[in-house]
Amino acid sequence: MSQEITATVLSIGDELLIGQTINTNAGWIGEQLSLIGIRATRVLVIGDDRQEILDALAQVRTDVLLITGGLGPTKDDITKHTLCEFFGTHLVRHPHIEARIAAFFESLGREPLEVNRAQADLPENCTVVPNERGTASGMWFEREGRVYVSMPGVPYEMKAMMEQHILPELKRRFTPPTIVHRTVLTTGLGESHLAQRIAAWEDSLAEGAIKLAYLPSPGLVKLRLSTYANNDPLGARDRVDQKAQQLYRLIPELIFGEGEERLEQVVGRMLKERGETLGLAESCTGGFVSHLVTSIPGSSAYYVGGVVSYANAVKMAELGIPADMLKLEGAVSRPVVEQMAQGVRQALRTDHSIAISGVAGPDGGTPEKPVGTVWIAVAGPHGVRSTMGNFPGSRDLVIKRSALAALNMLRKELLDHPAHRPMVDENL
Amino acid sequence: MSQEITATVLSIGDELLIGQTINTNAGWIGEQLSLIGIRATRVLVIGDDRQEILDALAQVRTDVLLITGGLGPTKDDITKHTLCEFFGTHLVRHPHIEARIAAFFESLGREPLEVNRAQADLPENCTVVPNERGTASGMWFEREGRVYVSMPGVPYEMKAMMEQHILPELKRRFTPPTIVHRTVLTTGLGESHLAQRIAAWEDSLAEGAIKLAYLPSPGLVKLRLSTYANNDPLGARDRVDQKAQQLYRLIPELIFGEGEERLEQVVGRMLKERGETLGLAESCTGGFVSHLVTSIPGSSAYYVGGVVSYANAVKMAELGIPADMLKLEGAVSRPVVEQMAQGVRQALRTDHSIAISGVAGPDGGTPEKPVGTVWIAVAGPHGVRSTMGNFPGSRDLVIKRSALAALNMLRKELLDHPAHRPMVDENL
Repeated sequence: MSQEITATVLSIGDELLIGQTINTNAGWIGEQLSLIGIRATRVLVIGDDRQEILDALAQVRTDVLLITGGLGPTKDDITKHTLCEFFGTHLVRHPHIEARIAAFFESLGREPLEVNRAQADLPENCTVVPNERGTASGMWFEREGRVYVSMPGVPYEMKAMMEQHILPELKRRFTPPTIVHRTVLTTGLGESHLAQRIAAWEDSLAEGAIKLAYLPSPGLVKLRLSTYANNDPLGARDRVDQKAQQLYRLIPELIFGEGEERLEQVVGRMLKERGETLGLAESCTGGFVSHLVTSIPGSSAYYVGGVVSYANAVKMAELGIPADMLKLEGAVSRPVVEQMAQGVRQALRTDHSIAISGVAGPDGGTPEKPVGTVWIAVAGPHGVRSTMGNFPGSRDLVIKRSALAALNMLRKELLDHPAHRPMVDENL
Repeated sequence: MSQEITATVLSIGDELLIGQTINTNAGWIGEQLSLIGIRATRVLVIGDDRQEILDALAQVRTDVLLITGGLGPTKDDITKHTLCEFFGTHLVRHPHIEARIAAFFESLGREPLEVNRAQADLPENCTVVPNERGTASGMWFEREGRVYVSMPGVPYEMKAMMEQHILPELKRRFTPPTIVHRTVLTTGLGESHLAQRIAAWEDSLAEGAIKLAYLPSPGLVKLRLSTYANNDPLGARDRVDQKAQQLYRLIPELIFGEGEERLEQVVGRMLKERGETLGLAESCTGGFVSHLVTSIPGSSAYYVGGVVSYANAVKMAELGIPADMLKLEGAVSRPVVEQMAQGVRQALRTDHSIAISGVAGPDGGTPEKPVGTVWIAVAGPHGVRSTMGNFPGSRDLVIKRSALAALNMLRKELLDHPAHRPMVDENL
C-alpha cells in the first residue's frame, strides 16, 4: 500500500464563526476525499482576515489544502489578495473569463458591474479552475510538493468544481490507495435496533478486511462498506459485493437503494418503469412529500399533482371526506386517511395515491393522539392500505419521518404487486 | 475600549471529518460567544487522535479554548487522557459524580456498567463542570492566563453546560467588551447589486464605528450591523438603531424582517393579525411553498391548503384553467398563472392566494422560456397581480428562489393594502 495522502480543509468566512452559516462544505469535502482514498485530518475555520489566512497557509502540514469561501464580489472578501501575497504573485485580468462573466450576467438580462468583472482578476502563477455554475474561478497552486486549491464557498458551485475538476486532478497527482466501497440505504429501523439485527453479519466483515460505518439521518440509516483494493481491485470489489449480497438476504424489506439514491428517486423510477402515475393528499406534512417527489428531475412523467388539505373544509370539498366522518373519527384517523387517499386518486385520476394525516406539533396533541401520531394510507389498483406511526422529535422531524415512511409504504406496495396491469385505468 | 477577548473552538471526532455528522456545535458556540463579546477567531476540527489533540492544545493563541467531543463512554476516552498528559496530571475518581451517574442509570431502570462509572474519572487539577443532561462531566483548566474547557459533543448536553455554567463563568473571568448588533433581512436583490444600492450608507457606518457583514443565502441577503458598546451600551444601541432606520428608509421594499425571522413566518404573522387566509396553487415549486408555510407552528390559523397542479389535467380540473388557454399561451404564462391564483382562491374560498408556474429545469427550457423562467401571481380582495422572474441556478435553487419571491410578493401585496376588510367573503 502506498503512503497515506492527507488533506486539510480551510473554510474562510466570518459568517461561519458566528453561526450565521452552518459549515456543510467541510464535511462534504471530507467525505468526497475519503472516497478517493485521501484522508482529511483537520478542518480549520477562520474569518475573512488577512493575517489569519496567512497563518493558516503557513501552518499546513498535509499534502493537500482545500480552501473554500472568501471569493465573492463584495468588500469583505480578501482571500484572493492574501493568496497572491503568500505565493509572491499578483492579480492579472483574464479576458476570456471576463467575457464568460459578462455573458453569464447578460443571460440573466443584467449588466455586470465592475466588481463582477473583477472576478476575472486572478493570480498570475496559479492554474485557473473553471467554475461551471458561477463567476468566481477556482485557483490551483503547488509549492514544495503540496497542493493548495481555493474554491468559492457557495456549495452548489464548489461541489461542481470538486467533482468535475479537483477530485480527478488530485487522483492523477497523488495516485492515492484505491478504496472499494458500497453504501446500502435502509429505512424503517433505527440505528441501534438495526445494529442488533445485523450483529452476526457485522462480526463476519473482519475476515474480508471490510470496514462498516453506520451513517444515520432522520428516518434513514446508510450502511457503508469499504476496503482497500491494494493490488487486487477486482478481488476487493468481489469481497464487498459478497457481503452486500448477504445483507440483502438478511434485511430485504429495509433496503431501498444504494449510494446517493434518495427514496423519492427510487419510488419515482419504479413508477416510471411501470408507466403508472401518482397523486398525493397531504395534511400534516403540508406539501413536503410533494416537494420531495418533485425535487427529482423528470418527475412530471409520473407525478400528476396533489392536494394539501390543511383545513377540514378542503378535506371535505376537494377529497370528499364526509363531515360526519371528520366529526366522529377526527381528522387523524384510519377512515379519514383512507378516504383522503381514495379521494385524491379519484379526483386526479391517478394509478396510485398516498395520503397523510397526523399531529406534527408542537401543539394539537391529545392523550389519545399525542404529537407524532401520523396515519398514512396508500391507494391503488389493488385497494387501499393504511398504517399508523408514532414519530419522535420536533415538528420538523415528525414531518420528515412521516414523509419517508409514506414513500416507503408506496415502495412496498409496488413491490408487493409487481405484475404489470393493463394500461387502461378504471377511472377513465 | 478594553482589549478584545478571543476564542478557539476545537471539535474532536472522526465522524466530523468524513461528513457523517455536520458540525453544528462550533457555529452555535461562536454565536453564543459573540453575544457576550468574545470573538471566536478559529474553529479547528480534528479526529480522535492523541497527537492531533496535543498539537491543537499546544497551538492555541487565543484567550479561551472550548473543546467539544471525545468524552463518550464507548470511545477510547482519548480526550480525557490527552488532557491529563498536556496538563501534567492524572485521573482520579470522584465519588459524588459516580453516585450521580449510578442514580442517572437507575432512574432509567438500568444498571450502570463499569464504562459508565469510569466517566467519574476526571483530571485531578481541573474544575469539574456539571452536566445536567448526561453523564460526561465538563473540565475547566487554566494555564498562563488561558482558559481551556472540555465539553461533551452531544449538542443537547453541551448547550446546557454552556448556558448554565461556562458562558456565565467566562463573563466573570474576562469581563469582555459588550457588542451591540442587529441583523436586517432582505430579499429581492442579489448581494452585489444590493451592495451598490447601499454603498453610500455603508460608507457612512465608519463614523459610528459600526461594522457591516453581508450574509447571503439563496434568495436572501442578511445585513448584520455590529459595534462595541464600550462603556456606553445605550449610546451604542442608539448608533446601531439610527443606522438601521436609515437603511429602512433606503430600501423599504427589500427588508422583510430581522434576526432569526423567516419570510414565511413574517407573512404568516401578517395574515394572522389580519384574520385572513391563504391558499396556494403550485406548479414548478411542487409543494415547496406549502411546505415552507406549514413549517411554521400554528400555520393552520391562516393556511387553508393548496393544490399542486403538476400536470395540465390538474390545472384544468382543479383550478379551472381553460384547455384553450394552456394550448395557446403555455402553462408558463401570465394568463395561466393568474387563472391558477384566482382558481385556487375560489376553490378553497380563501382571502388570498399565490400561484406559481415556471421551468425549474434541468429539462423543459426553450429559447423563449429558458430554465429559470417563473411566473408568479397573487390574488386577493383587491384583484390579481403577476410578475415574471428569471432565477439562476440548479433545479433546487430555482425552486427555492421562486418560493421566496412568491412569499415576498404576497408580503408586498399585504403591505400595499393595509386596510382591514370586512370579515365577509364575496365567495361565500
